[in-house]
Amino acid sequence: MSATMKALRKTRAAKGLEIQEVPVPSIGAQDALVRVTATSICGTDLHIDGWDRWSQGRIKPPVTLGHEFCGIVECVGEDVSALRPGDFVSAEMHLNCGHCHQCRLGEAHICQNLKIIGIDMDGAFAEFVKIPATNIWKLDAAIPEHYAAILDPLGNAVHTVLAGAIAGQTVLVTGCGPIGLMSIAVAKACGSSTVFATETNEHRRAMAEEMGADHVLNPACEDPVKKILAATSGTGVDVLLEMSGQPAAIQQGFKSLRAGGRASLLGIPTENVPLDLVQDVIFKGATVQGIYGRRMYGTWVQMTALLKAGRVNLEPLFGERLALDNFEAAFAKLHSGMAGKILMYPNGLTK
Amino acid sequence: MSATMKALRKTRAAKGLEIQEVPVPSIGAQDALVRVTATSICGTDLHIDGWDRWSQGRIKPPVTLGHEFCGIVECVGEDVSALRPGDFVSAEMHLNCGHCHQCRLGEAHICQNLKIIGIDMDGAFAEFVKIPATNIWKLDAAIPEHYAAILDPLGNAVHTVLAGAIAGQTVLVTGCGPIGLMSIAVAKACGSSTVFATETNEHRRAMAEEMGADHVLNPACEDPVKKILAATSGTGVDVLLEMSGQPAAIQQGFKSLRAGGRASLLGIPTENVPLDLVQDVIFKGATVQGIYGRRMYGTWVQMTALLKAGRVNLEPLFGERLALDNFEAAFAKLHSGMAGKILMYPNGLTK
Amino acid sequence: MSATMKALRKTRAAKGLEIQEVPVPSIGAQDALVRVTATSICGTDLHIDGWDRWSQGRIKPPVTLGHEFCGIVECVGEDVSALRPGDFVSAEMHLNCGHCHQCRLGEAHICQNLKIIGIDMDGAFAEFVKIPATNIWKLDAAIPEHYAAILDPLGNAVHTVLAGAIAGQTVLVTGCGPIGLMSIAVAKACGSSTVFATETNEHRRAMAEEMGADHVLNPACEDPVKKILAATSGTGVDVLLEMSGQPAAIQQGFKSLRAGGRASLLGIPTENVPLDLVQDVIFKGATVQGIYGRRMYGTWVQMTALLKAGRVNLEPLFGERLALDNFEAAFAKLHSGMAGKILMYPNGLTK
Amino acid sequence: MSATMKALRKTRAAKGLEIQEVPVPSIGAQDALVRVTATSICGTDLHIDGWDRWSQGRIKPPVTLGHEFCGIVECVGEDVSALRPGDFVSAEMHLNCGHCHQCRLGEAHICQNLKIIGIDMDGAFAEFVKIPATNIWKLDAAIPEHYAAILDPLGNAVHTVLAGAIAGQTVLVTGCGPIGLMSIAVAKACGSSTVFATETNEHRRAMAEEMGADHVLNPACEDPVKKILAATSGTGVDVLLEMSGQPAAIQQGFKSLRAGGRASLLGIPTENVPLDLVQDVIFKGATVQGIYGRRMYGTWVQMTALLKAGRVNLEPLFGERLALDNFEAAFAKLHSGMAGKILMYPNGLTK
Repeated sequence: MSATMKALRKTRAAKGLEIQEVPVPSIGAQDALVRVTATSICGTDLHIDGWDRWSQGRIKPPVTLGHEFCGIVECVGEDVSALRPGDFVSAEMHLNCGHCHQCRLGEAHICQNLKIIGIDMDGAFAEFVKIPATNIWKLDAAIPEHYAAILDPLGNAVHTVLAGAIAGQTVLVTGCGPIGLMSIAVAKACGSSTVFATETNEHRRAMAEEMGADHVLNPACEDPVKKILAATSGTGVDVLLEMSGQPAAIQQGFKSLRAGGRASLLGIPTENVPLDLVQDVIFKGATVQGIYGRRMYGTWVQMTALLKAGRVNLEPLFGERLALDNFEAAFAKLHSGMAGKILMYPNGLTK
Repeated sequence: MSATMKALRKTRAAKGLEIQEVPVPSIGAQDALVRVTATSICGTDLHIDGWDRWSQGRIKPPVTLGHEFCGIVECVGEDVSALRPGDFVSAEMHLNCGHCHQCRLGEAHICQNLKIIGIDMDGAFAEFVKIPATNIWKLDAAIPEHYAAILDPLGNAVHTVLAGAIAGQTVLVTGCGPIGLMSIAVAKACGSSTVFATETNEHRRAMAEEMGADHVLNPACEDPVKKILAATSGTGVDVLLEMSGQPAAIQQGFKSLRAGGRASLLGIPTENVPLDLVQDVIFKGATVQGIYGRRMYGTWVQMTALLKAGRVNLEPLFGERLALDNFEAAFAKLHSGMAGKILMYPNGLTK
Repeated sequence: MSATMKALRKTRAAKGLEIQEVPVPSIGAQDALVRVTATSICGTDLHIDGWDRWSQGRIKPPVTLGHEFCGIVECVGEDVSALRPGDFVSAEMHLNCGHCHQCRLGEAHICQNLKIIGIDMDGAFAEFVKIPATNIWKLDAAIPEHYAAILDPLGNAVHTVLAGAIAGQTVLVTGCGPIGLMSIAVAKACGSSTVFATETNEHRRAMAEEMGADHVLNPACEDPVKKILAATSGTGVDVLLEMSGQPAAIQQGFKSLRAGGRASLLGIPTENVPLDLVQDVIFKGATVQGIYGRRMYGTWVQMTALLKAGRVNLEPLFGERLALDNFEAAFAKLHSGMAGKILMYPNGLTK
Repeated sequence: MSATMKALRKTRAAKGLEIQEVPVPSIGAQDALVRVTATSICGTDLHIDGWDRWSQGRIKPPVTLGHEFCGIVECVGEDVSALRPGDFVSAEMHLNCGHCHQCRLGEAHICQNLKIIGIDMDGAFAEFVKIPATNIWKLDAAIPEHYAAILDPLGNAVHTVLAGAIAGQTVLVTGCGPIGLMSIAVAKACGSSTVFATETNEHRRAMAEEMGADHVLNPACEDPVKKILAATSGTGVDVLLEMSGQPAAIQQGFKSLRAGGRASLLGIPTENVPLDLVQDVIFKGATVQGIYGRRMYGTWVQMTALLKAGRVNLEPLFGERLALDNFEAAFAKLHSGMAGKILMYPNGLTK
């Protein structure tokens, strides 16, 4: 094994990324070193590439990006017994502290001292990545590699969909980016009845249908609230899965929600959202849930069970597959607004 | 409309049933009269026909049997506004009192003063049946008549399956009578991963596979506990759906359940069951649920949503379809142990 | 029994109320007529008296006001078996339709066709009130009459407090009007640990301490968020009970809530509230609940159990007791901002 | 600090215990060494002393007993940042593996590979005890030392009581050993309404009243089922907390439970228990929960919050306080059937 490796990094406090040759990470007694086989690009990576205000406040260059990935365990620290070299794995890249109030309550995903690999420390856009063994998720060989590379966002979708009752429920997904699209497939696989989706981008609306949505609406051309109420005898949907972060979509979502319904919010608005709390939440007796990350590790258990059972078809989501060196093409395509997941292969294309 | 009608009745405290001509029921201000189009025979009807000990204690002849059915509203009482003649309906045949502790808590299905139409008062094995309007369930035309005739037992299955988390869960169904078989289909439609089923009857094992079970085991020839533990890395299943009422199956079910799992019991044992409470419940931190009837009317909402979405295929369940006059052939076939649902048509075969 | 009675009514579309002599209501087969012994004035009654915009849109004069009360059953309709003359009762004054989606789901408190006695039809500020028997709540003689007169708002408090875990939880009550004050007592009786309360009115702050609040803060003089975070090691409270309807208090409440906490909203803002959904709900993984009315009738069961057990001391809440004829003095006092509950006695002061 | 210390140990596979001088434990990078200030004797310790069949199968002498304790951190391993010498602590003595299915799901208390300090490895009946830092529970100085010494069994009680709704619920505690007694106090502190308790031992019945039970019944002299049904208008109790492990008490508990009620089982029967599953669980729609250990660490959070708030009075529970050297007197007293908790002080009586 060579002493250095290729890594895609934010090297300075400015726009852009670059490939650098850096030392292979050395691991501690409770860590594993993983040879990265496939990675996927998150919207967060685009923000860091573009060096927006959030990135400027959070990222401390130099740092290797990348938190959606899968790979093969290369070696493990001396205290690690549950993993061995050769294991096919992905990982929860959110690191919790273990001793704050939330960690003690089993709510590690909202730990007060959370750090993220690929954001706050070197990530997976590299030939190797170092990860605490406890965060590694061993994968069944039945899970295909390209699915294994996107478990992080699939986990967001599963966390959101399964945050309440879903079987036999009518559902509205507002926003059909990758996680919204995955949510459609997950909801249908878990027994939701009618699934509505709203999205202004034509390409994504077509994908929403492929993922299984029953009614895909374009809020730029039609009033989704009116359509949804008409289709539900005036009652509204049982469940809102908010994936857009757009104030107008959030408001339409709440207006489409039935009294007693559940609104699970994952999309990130960039500003305060004025809510009609009286009509949309209080008089409705609605339940609103903020959803962040993935439950550690309940969501991973659910997600891999759904995949192993073959119940969730994600194929329509995937776009191009490139070597890590071609990262500029990948990022350019994604900045252009294309919805699919682009995979990058730090150790060469596997097929 | 004629003043009398044909009805299949228990006419005296002895074995057997007979067809009688009886007056069409007159209805009260809050009732509906339903023209019965299709009915289905429940195991309870077989017990009443056979006049077993339970029947002798409960049934007061003469009484018309039948509590699984669908039909068309013929007329409604003067206080009824939510129904009109011509509506396609089924009904919850359990009548709750409305003022006991459980009714006040929204647990009407376990009302302290429950009466059952078709058991404690005249039922649906007749051309017409009288039912309180509040118990009538209006059906979407999208639901086929033969499905509509078996919503009562399907509701038992849905109640049991959805009494806890099911998406991404491994499941064991012990006992593949009609409700066990429906439970398999419902669990798969709601995202359960691997579904195991146990059943000694060969015909029913074949049906269990048709309904979607992943592994169907014959406890007469193989140790289901050993097989299930082996298939789950020694962990056991997340969910036990007990549908047999057989002590051995119940015990095998508990031994197959993982620590922290859910055991939902619907099958009715005929005697006390010795349970290893320490190993199977307490040290396991298991949750055991008694399941009775259908939630009024949450289960009906879920069930019709699942059917309307086309997610549950019950076709393999259906056996012969007969006119009510041929009831003897129907009961004989069922007493012989055949698993499927036999439909009887009091107003003539509809197709 | 006389054919007419005294009633406090909104007689025309303008400010003010007046006492009128009206016919004693005649009851239907499923109703009860209740002789009203004690009533209490709700904030809603003040709005109707003052004829604000909401009242102008909702109230159709003439109508008798009053929905907080207790009394003695005078007579019952022919279909009523669960009540008899002489029973000591209060009632849920929200009438649900029984057949909408929410009613079928057991969520009658958010029925799509809700009507309110004392708002949409003649209420309890009268010698007698007509109520459907199913809405009547029989009371144990152990419950004192003045408590029985305020079960409606106490039910709001109990519904809010018990909408999630409360034992061993830290709690913030924002707004110490009558329902906020009751919530403090209920939360303490149900095992909450530290209870914080915020309120700008000095008189109400004093009452909050009497009701059992551990820390009562005045947001006009100190920063409640800073104080609460400091007192909880920076974590925030487990539960927010929002009782003020004030945007600033709502925002302070969310900023004081811990990640993973519960925010139960009962107070009614008069305009849209800009929420920092990202920091206060989504990244926090918070659960926000709209609370309306009382669960029918689960909340009534809980509330009377807590009262019978002597666990909730409401004595500090009570202000003056007046005959119905003195309504002008009662309303004037309440318009002046005094917090306590004023009782009015339509059939004369009982002690 | 001396290199050796005094410890109370099972030294060979036979009846009895003895004090030995053993090396002070050396700790690993993630451990803490705690100077034990107070300990308490569990029923399990009595079984091990008496060398019953369970002990013979589980205990591998020599081993130091003791798993109920509190103390002061003496020193910590090099990786430990959340603790420092001088911290006042107790600890969860159940060690979970961290990687089995249950650990991954946040159900560490039912880990498949659980080990217990004081059973499977050296415990706290010694001057010092070694414990993994993650299992240490830091205590607020507001919690008195004698309470801190019995958090392990108090956690069992809190885990059982709070395993479902408790506020406003009627409760039956079957069996008034220490954990049953604690459950009474915890249930009352959390808003339960009427609490019934059954116990044959007169001394314990008296303690049950001191702890706050409303009705204490002696099943040797009166039929508790009949009494409880009579006191609840024939409905039965909402919650059964089974603390006895006695088949007759378990059966009485189930017969006293209302339809729709919760039965939480903590007591350990020594043989299979014949249950009337049909009448007591299935037709009742009951929920039965096995309770084991304490949730890690949700129960610890709840328990310390309840104690800090001063809501749970445990004073009546405490019996004698002895130096560790007097262990024979302590064990003799407990073998004689006295209910209270006896404290032993390995580093000398603290007051």
